Amino acid sequence: MLNYDLTTLDWSSYTKIVEKIHHYLEGAEDLPTGWLHAPLENQDALFVHIEETALEIRNFADVLIVIGVGGSFLGARAVQDALTPYFGAHHDGIEVIYVGQNMSGAYIKQLLENVENKSVYVNVVSKSGGTMEPALAFRVVRQYMELQYGEKAAERIIVTTDSTSGILKKIADSSGYRQFVIPSNIGGRFSVLTAAGLLPMAVAGVDIYNLMLGAKVAALEFQESQLEHNEAYRYAVLRHALYEQGYKIELLASFEPALNKFHEWWKQLFGESEGKEKKGLYPSTVNFSTDLHAIGQFIQDGSPILFETLLHFHEIDDDLAVPYDIRDEDGLNYLANRTFNEINAISKEGTALAHSEGNVPVIQLELQKLDAYHVGFLIYFFMKACTMSAYLLGVNPFDQPGVETYKLKMMELLQESKVSK
Amino acid sequence: MLNYDLTTLDWSSYTKIVEKIHHYLEGAEDLPTGWLHAPLENQDALFVHIEETALEIRNFADVLIVIGVGGSFLGARAVQDALTPYFGAHHDGIEVIYVGQNMSGAYIKQLLENVENKSVYVNVVSKSGGTMEPALAFRVVRQYMELQYGEKAAERIIVTTDSTSGILKKIADSSGYRQFVIPSNIGGRFSVLTAAGLLPMAVAGVDIYNLMLGAKVAALEFQESQLEHNEAYRYAVLRHALYEQGYKIELLASFEPALNKFHEWWKQLFGESEGKEKKGLYPSTVNFSTDLHAIGQFIQDGSPILFETLLHFHEIDDDLAVPYDIRDEDGLNYLANRTFNEINAISKEGTALAHSEGNVPVIQLELQKLDAYHVGFLIYFFMKACTMSAYLLGVNPFDQPGVETYKLKMMELLQESKVSK
Repeated sequence: MLNYDLTTLDWSSYTKIVEKIHHYLEGAEDLPTGWLHAPLENQDALFVHIEETALEIRNFADVLIVIGVGGSFLGARAVQDALTPYFGAHHDGIEVIYVGQNMSGAYIKQLLENVENKSVYVNVVSKSGGTMEPALAFRVVRQYMELQYGEKAAERIIVTTDSTSGILKKIADSSGYRQFVIPSNIGGRFSVLTAAGLLPMAVAGVDIYNLMLGAKVAALEFQESQLEHNEAYRYAVLRHALYEQGYKIELLASFEPALNKFHEWWKQLFGESEGKEKKGLYPSTVNFSTDLHAIGQFIQDGSPILFETLLHFHEIDDDLAVPYDIRDEDGLNYLANRTFNEINAISKEGTALAHSEGNVPVIQLELQKLDAYHVGFLIYFFMKACTMSAYLLGVNPFDQPGVETYKLKMMELLQESKVSK
Repeated sequence: MLNYDLTTLDWSSYTKIVEKIHHYLEGAEDLPTGWLHAPLENQDALFVHIEETALEIRNFADVLIVIGVGGSFLGARAVQDALTPYFGAHHDGIEVIYVGQNMSGAYIKQLLENVENKSVYVNVVSKSGGTMEPALAFRVVRQYMELQYGEKAAERIIVTTDSTSGILKKIADSSGYRQFVIPSNIGGRFSVLTAAGLLPMAVAGVDIYNLMLGAKVAALEFQESQLEHNEAYRYAVLRHALYEQGYKIELLASFEPALNKFHEWWKQLFGESEGKEKKGLYPSTVNFSTDLHAIGQFIQDGSPILFETLLHFHEIDDDLAVPYDIRDEDGLNYLANRTFNEINAISKEGTALAHSEGNVPVIQLELQKLDAYHVGFLIYFFMKACTMSAYLLGVNPFDQPGVETYKLKMMELLQESKVSK
């Protein structure tokens, strides 16, 4: 899966520290590492419950509104986008719409106008219920649901939250909403493979069994403590070594636009886990080939501050051949009958060569097929690699003290502006 | 419009060089700077022609497929997204879909399946017609149109290209397609205010007269040669000074999700204009508040390599008040009757304060209203600032030699793989 052209790396200098971190993580009881072994546990009852709920929603709703921010929506949206048709969401079956990520009045208002006369279900995802954006969105959407459905609204609102504490838990209990649990030992950006991610995905038509099978195989494969045999750890070491060499930015690049939202999930995972104590690689993403005609110039010839991680899936389910054209006015008949995905793969090779020659280090991550199984595998791979990488950097992957600064400032300003009004 | 907290900058050291570059640009006859004065010229005949064509398309089509890559689609899509409703494209009137940016077989195939049984028009935008992605997409879409509409297909295909040369020009002539011109003295990433951008925008419902009025006012305002009185040049100097101080990344941030695609246009403009000779700020973008819960941690506490440019529009046409809830289980009644856009503006202030305290330099760009006029103004502002910024850096803003490396590598591989087949 992992290829790279970094020949100057002394792997042996990392073997001991990697093993030490590995055993620390495996043995830790006070860390929020529930995601580490969850895929190995028997979660069949949960999956059946999720599938049954998803089936009900698909049967009775035209739209599922998912309310969440950060880790409470990025994972679900990432997997949904990666695995469902490009234009399908608006035509076949149910539409899954996300809200509570922003505070745009226009977005929320137009969302409600858009769902008028449609049958709506709601899934609120928040561990605490106290985060401003989803809390405000839920207040609006809850009122809408109660106006539309009266007492029946409670049957259409499903809450995914902590099992015992938090504002959202209290609201769900008092209103009798159905509840799914985000385990208390799994933090937001590691929660994509819990009910937080799985319920919206299942509604969108993602095969969550194969997704979790991929995660399980990854959990087994990356349980290996030896750097030499663990590609998640090797990826962590590669990116750490490049950081030590002075690179500032890791650029995750893929060649299928369906992965754009997956990029956003990846950015949060690495940015929020590592960006602290004035350290960390800045996580940035591009979608090729479109961005070769945008940011490609900078990658090739601009400030030499970045390395590139190319993410490539060998097989994509749908494809199309370049047609033969007897006129051949565009001179492209030499590509006739080849498929776009073939040409895209060659474009990937060309990119890797061109950027290597431009002295941009290139790491390649290759997976067999863009399907639920391999996306599940990849999610686990990144979560495991990210954790190792953060510890190599000497930071705690599981906190986010910097986000609190913004929240505090905003609360202060909101209180002040209330007084002055 | 421009605010900043960079107190250490010695503006006077820049006044002479800025004036020199200004006069070089104004006097240059061999540079592709047609965009510089175009908004000041009388283009009414062109605008009427575009509006008439757009009206025809809106009357007869359900879908307009726009084929282009890089500068031939980013601008149109940016403005369309910024100025049309969030959920409107799929419900009211016409749908504008972009293709030719990627080589995903799945995307193109599903696009054609999606438009089946709909009335389709096509706008191909390419200065040369020789770029692989749009050329391949056009080959596919052209065949589709000819199968669907026979000889009438020619009436539904509109070409925006060079006035005299190139493959696409030849194809358009031989097939009798209607043509719009990308002036030869305007390069791709500066072409958003030509027919390349204006026709798709007009079809999508953008008021191109007010857009161009905003650009015209900006062209007048930023004709000023004195740094002291020219905010476009001041922004250029600010970002250049921060680059000189060692910052590696400029992070453009805005608070309205409608601006996500505008960010992509901005990234290409700056990345491709400045990213050469191993120099340049890496352009990156975030959408707040969603990304405060993703990359916010890195901004606040991660590697101190970035500064932030906050883009804010004071008024957004649509808005919504936070409802009062007698239960107040979420404790948010203190915000009841305030609008989301008000709270969003306070979130912007909180962000600026928090990030400044985290020692992230913050530049603020403030515009009155998110409408066609101000977006046109802003586009011109950025193009002018970018040009000045590139010359301050000592690079040519109008070429993109690095993009060619990738194109060459890909062509080599395609030729090789043909032989070996």
